[in-house]
Amino acid sequence: MPATWKSNLEVTIFGESHGKAIGVVLGNFPAGIKVDEEFIAVQMKKRAPGLNIMSTSRKEADKVEIVSGVFEGMTTGAPICGMIYNSDQHSKDYSILKEKMRPAHSDYPAAIRYNGFNDVRGGGHFSGRITAPIVFAGALCKLALKQKGIEIVSHIAQIKDVHDDLFPMDITPEMVERLSNMQYPVIKEGVFEQMSETIDEARWGQNSVGGKIECAILNVPVGLGDPFFDSVESKLSSLMFSIPAVKSIAFGNANISELTGKEANDEYYYDEFKNVKTTTNNNGGILGGITTGMPVVFTLGLKPTSSISLKQNTIDIKSRENTTLEIVGRHDPCVVLRAAVVVEAMSAIAALDLLND
Amino acid sequence: MPATWKSNLEVTIFGESHGKAIGVVLGNFPAGIKVDEEFIAVQMKKRAPGLNIMSTSRKEADKVEIVSGVFEGMTTGAPICGMIYNSDQHSKDYSILKEKMRPAHSDYPAAIRYNGFNDVRGGGHFSGRITAPIVFAGALCKLALKQKGIEIVSHIAQIKDVHDDLFPMDITPEMVERLSNMQYPVIKEGVFEQMSETIDEARWGQNSVGGKIECAILNVPVGLGDPFFDSVESKLSSLMFSIPAVKSIAFGNANISELTGKEANDEYYYDEFKNVKTTTNNNGGILGGITTGMPVVFTLGLKPTSSISLKQNTIDIKSRENTTLEIVGRHDPCVVLRAAVVVEAMSAIAALDLLND
Amino acid sequence: MPATWKSNLEVTIFGESHGKAIGVVLGNFPAGIKVDEEFIAVQMKKRAPGLNIMSTSRKEADKVEIVSGVFEGMTTGAPICGMIYNSDQHSKDYSILKEKMRPAHSDYPAAIRYNGFNDVRGGGHFSGRITAPIVFAGALCKLALKQKGIEIVSHIAQIKDVHDDLFPMDITPEMVERLSNMQYPVIKEGVFEQMSETIDEARWGQNSVGGKIECAILNVPVGLGDPFFDSVESKLSSLMFSIPAVKSIAFGNANISELTGKEANDEYYYDEFKNVKTTTNNNGGILGGITTGMPVVFTLGLKPTSSISLKQNTIDIKSRENTTLEIVGRHDPCVVLRAAVVVEAMSAIAALDLLND
Amino acid sequence: MPATWKSNLEVTIFGESHGKAIGVVLGNFPAGIKVDEEFIAVQMKKRAPGLNIMSTSRKEADKVEIVSGVFEGMTTGAPICGMIYNSDQHSKDYSILKEKMRPAHSDYPAAIRYNGFNDVRGGGHFSGRITAPIVFAGALCKLALKQKGIEIVSHIAQIKDVHDDLFPMDITPEMVERLSNMQYPVIKEGVFEQMSETIDEARWGQNSVGGKIECAILNVPVGLGDPFFDSVESKLSSLMFSIPAVKSIAFGNANISELTGKEANDEYYYDEFKNVKTTTNNNGGILGGITTGMPVVFTLGLKPTSSISLKQNTIDIKSRENTTLEIVGRHDPCVVLRAAVVVEAMSAIAALDLLND
Repeated sequence: MPATWKSNLEVTIFGESHGKAIGVVLGNFPAGIKVDEEFIAVQMKKRAPGLNIMSTSRKEADKVEIVSGVFEGMTTGAPICGMIYNSDQHSKDYSILKEKMRPAHSDYPAAIRYNGFNDVRGGGHFSGRITAPIVFAGALCKLALKQKGIEIVSHIAQIKDVHDDLFPMDITPEMVERLSNMQYPVIKEGVFEQMSETIDEARWGQNSVGGKIECAILNVPVGLGDPFFDSVESKLSSLMFSIPAVKSIAFGNANISELTGKEANDEYYYDEFKNVKTTTNNNGGILGGITTGMPVVFTLGLKPTSSISLKQNTIDIKSRENTTLEIVGRHDPCVVLRAAVVVEAMSAIAALDLLND
Repeated sequence: MPATWKSNLEVTIFGESHGKAIGVVLGNFPAGIKVDEEFIAVQMKKRAPGLNIMSTSRKEADKVEIVSGVFEGMTTGAPICGMIYNSDQHSKDYSILKEKMRPAHSDYPAAIRYNGFNDVRGGGHFSGRITAPIVFAGALCKLALKQKGIEIVSHIAQIKDVHDDLFPMDITPEMVERLSNMQYPVIKEGVFEQMSETIDEARWGQNSVGGKIECAILNVPVGLGDPFFDSVESKLSSLMFSIPAVKSIAFGNANISELTGKEANDEYYYDEFKNVKTTTNNNGGILGGITTGMPVVFTLGLKPTSSISLKQNTIDIKSRENTTLEIVGRHDPCVVLRAAVVVEAMSAIAALDLLND
Repeated sequence: MPATWKSNLEVTIFGESHGKAIGVVLGNFPAGIKVDEEFIAVQMKKRAPGLNIMSTSRKEADKVEIVSGVFEGMTTGAPICGMIYNSDQHSKDYSILKEKMRPAHSDYPAAIRYNGFNDVRGGGHFSGRITAPIVFAGALCKLALKQKGIEIVSHIAQIKDVHDDLFPMDITPEMVERLSNMQYPVIKEGVFEQMSETIDEARWGQNSVGGKIECAILNVPVGLGDPFFDSVESKLSSLMFSIPAVKSIAFGNANISELTGKEANDEYYYDEFKNVKTTTNNNGGILGGITTGMPVVFTLGLKPTSSISLKQNTIDIKSRENTTLEIVGRHDPCVVLRAAVVVEAMSAIAALDLLND
Repeated sequence: MPATWKSNLEVTIFGESHGKAIGVVLGNFPAGIKVDEEFIAVQMKKRAPGLNIMSTSRKEADKVEIVSGVFEGMTTGAPICGMIYNSDQHSKDYSILKEKMRPAHSDYPAAIRYNGFNDVRGGGHFSGRITAPIVFAGALCKLALKQKGIEIVSHIAQIKDVHDDLFPMDITPEMVERLSNMQYPVIKEGVFEQMSETIDEARWGQNSVGGKIECAILNVPVGLGDPFFDSVESKLSSLMFSIPAVKSIAFGNANISELTGKEANDEYYYDEFKNVKTTTNNNGGILGGITTGMPVVFTLGLKPTSSISLKQNTIDIKSRENTTLEIVGRHDPCVVLRAAVVVEAMSAIAALDLLND
């Protein structure tokens, strides 16, 4: 398995769900950025489990130990390694996972890919837990972006069939502030209560639900990115599909395929300060692969949690027979809630990478 | 602007819509593949304009001259360069394009990105015409994939609000054959006539429409790809968003976010030949970033053609004033029709790249 | 075979010695550089064969046709493709090359690597002729570097046992000018006559000779490059060993291993204008992988031309027997003469790449 | 600063000389390799300081803690993170290092490159100490290579003007065994005593000396590598110049530039078992960038240790005045001794990378 995403920035991840530690190494990060540990802790907490009845009840501190690349509170330009030690390692028998393939998990393709040597405990390196170091890396990138006025904001756009409002054309600093301070950010008043009910219903039914996250990168300068292979959409989508459970992405207006050109084309105008703006943002702030200066907006679709306690049909690859499986243990009935900060982190990585181009 | 996608394969593109030629260099392509020139010509013809009232009336032969990498009809392992000469170069005045920014085109962000030096004639290197060399590269990849039994097939899933059927669970060789032989592949009888009407309506209204393409990669071995940064979804999406007009991608069931885990989880079974299958394919043949052996299926959303003749509001970056614009000339009222073979080509590039991993 | 070197710049090469054409695609080249065609032609001429009794007598014009990336005489930022058509293609029988392996050529390892499918005519893609497009790419990079005051200069430091002087500490603009205007640049008066005699002797003996080239990159800003994997030495050496026949590289004083620390350490001082200088340049302008602001200096060792007419022992891989071989035809008795401009070109690519970092 | 070398393998390094820890992440390492911890410890010990009067007297255990990628003693295919904690951190005042630039160190270019934010304590991330994780990564690669019969061996070819014998044409398993078991490997009887004397003399004179290392990769299959940018020489040299103090590399016969073609060309023959061999190996087992099946042999030149206690002239970048400097503390008078195992480690990384191609 590769460890590294190498572009202008370099992000290297390692670790397993039930190993000693998980972590990340961030290369080519700019020197001279002040490391705000409190800000980092808040970001980590948003992803951490066990904070809410709606998430899995495992208590993981997810405290990051910065091993390198920071001196006297400032980044040095050298690779930054952040480690998160796994306090909650289990020694129980996982051998069943080498035989009965959990549906919609990586178990089966990974067993073939790595000749059965992959660590199956808790999903090993395939665990969603590996997104914790991504949140740390993203937090550092957010700190570097803030110096340039760039903000990243997201909200839970949908849980199963419960929809939040979408971002308005004008995402105000107040809205950014409000959403950033919510553990589970939503725009529409009262919608989170409905979402909670939907999730609870899934939980009691030993089932799970999926949903959508909408994310915006604000104050992006015009002219980042390139056509074709290095389009901003290519870079962002490539990173977003690295997040487990993400199965779709749509830039700008998710229904753009159903519009006419006249409706879809974002018309330009100079505002009163001679800034270039568009009246709509159906293209999500990207044209020809390059940023237009309007917010970069996209929506991700996440599938329902694969781990459910309901009995499922599957195969036993040891006996080579059909069989059934009931997955016991603690599972998030909906990973969407904790994924928003991961999506923001990946967006921050992409945005800083584009700026360093 | 970067020219090269470098993975296990290398794809380098160059050229401008109104320059001498456009082309591609394919590196790390396997030696010993027979170059079927007729097959290549058929692929090129599917993308070529002017074949149908529904496409722009420009006649471009799009004949590929193979400059290197082929000896006595076989690939040699050396880089393959394919050139397509532009027979239809125009010398008319394009200076207006440096001033009035066409909405939803790359004009404005490119002018900023390249300090006004970018070639604006026909969109320059941003032109959809650059997908012609991609089709050539994809045709070569298809030939290499066929030797391993891997097939790629696509259809026009939607034009504005006219929907084709989606792929069934079992995509038979007969269906592949039938769709591959259609200039505009659709599954449902009679639906293309409705699509044509929708496109004609847009044309007469000096407007344009978008749509969707569904694509499947068949007979993919289980175990290609890797978790996180090198997920199959990351690789495919990154390439797909290199195609102009593509604005969304969804793997497997595009509505998976609205399903429960019980509904979404693809249950495994051994078929009568002890092959591993799943009863559904909501995950589009990819789990944990790795292929499962089921068809890799995804749907792309394309926006309506940006060039429309209707009057639009925009800016003049020379005078720095608001203005209006009417784009004259020949435009595809719907690029979706010609894009299917481009999508297949990119899929072939991705699939061969994964096999070479 | 891979085609592309992808760093901040992208260089993609293609073509075979006896194919239709050879060429290069240059990606991420800056927009707005004036393309001085005369300068390019002069550079191409330095590498071109047939100019001198000392080189092979084949007449190859090596005129570059710029296919893309240039508009109205200026680079546009889009990929630049330069093509050189092969006027001098031969149709003679090369089948012997698939059987009898020429010593010190790529014949044998390439036959194994590419399963016998590699184009053997004139060495195919392994031909030194592929360095012609590199010279074109390097000429463009030199034009971009000149805008920043950076100059590249080289000389023939050694032919067999005939030595030129090495670069002095102070390489003056006059010396750069003088060496740049020589077809075969040497520093010491009269030394080229001795070199010529040595080469002639080899020619008459149906033999060949090797030699060394010393190259300097001048006016490099301090602070380019990075430690470890991205050291300036790593980047330069990687590119230099892409040039056929290069077998060694030494940065700075080639005898540094035999000095003491006191002798080898380049002591700093402020000159009268408060510029930082060193009294010696044993480290070749690079410390910790990063440029110091002193000239980046290195020496390359090239092996003697592998093609010689003397009878040699070898193997026949068809009959699997030991045999002998006499290579007929025109060969350079010494490739060092024509290689200096190739070395400069690769240096220019490296230097522009470092600046774009 | 970048952290990652990304090819087929991925090697990511991090840490500072006086930070909490240094480490490495190895991506794309094959699954199913048995991790021989004793072998790893022996490799680490060869590089570790303090073992000999000839090395610096600091005691560093350099024990590697494997954090991820290994389960039940076998590699899992997931990224392998190895950590080495710094037991010997000093808190003394290093502020002088921000002012007075040590000659031949990275101090000055790094201060400019990273705007003075780089960690100067013990050289920070520029420290030769960062080669310890490389030795660990190399040890793992050696274990994987051994399964394929590939061995790597090196010896100290030269210390200042004291020369060891060079490798003979036939490097026997006995020679490999003997050299591998020596802390300071040399071929010629008694030569190490002379080398020791030379080093001691430097030490007593508060000075330092450099030297050369010759390395061979044995039993490499024919047909690894590619022409031009991906030549085996390019890959190896790029990695070797990542090792601090390395300033030159020569493949095969270091004097090949002074030979004639007849002398330099390695003639092929079939041996009694119909294996392809060459009578000489002046090309160091590489032709056209591709391995020939003969040993891959190369020689590295290392400069004398930059840190010497003798008074040196330099600059003070704070006061911007010329000044002098005496570097106090413990320094290796010759880094060549400990570098051999680092060179082998980098060779192992390169060789495994070529095999995975």
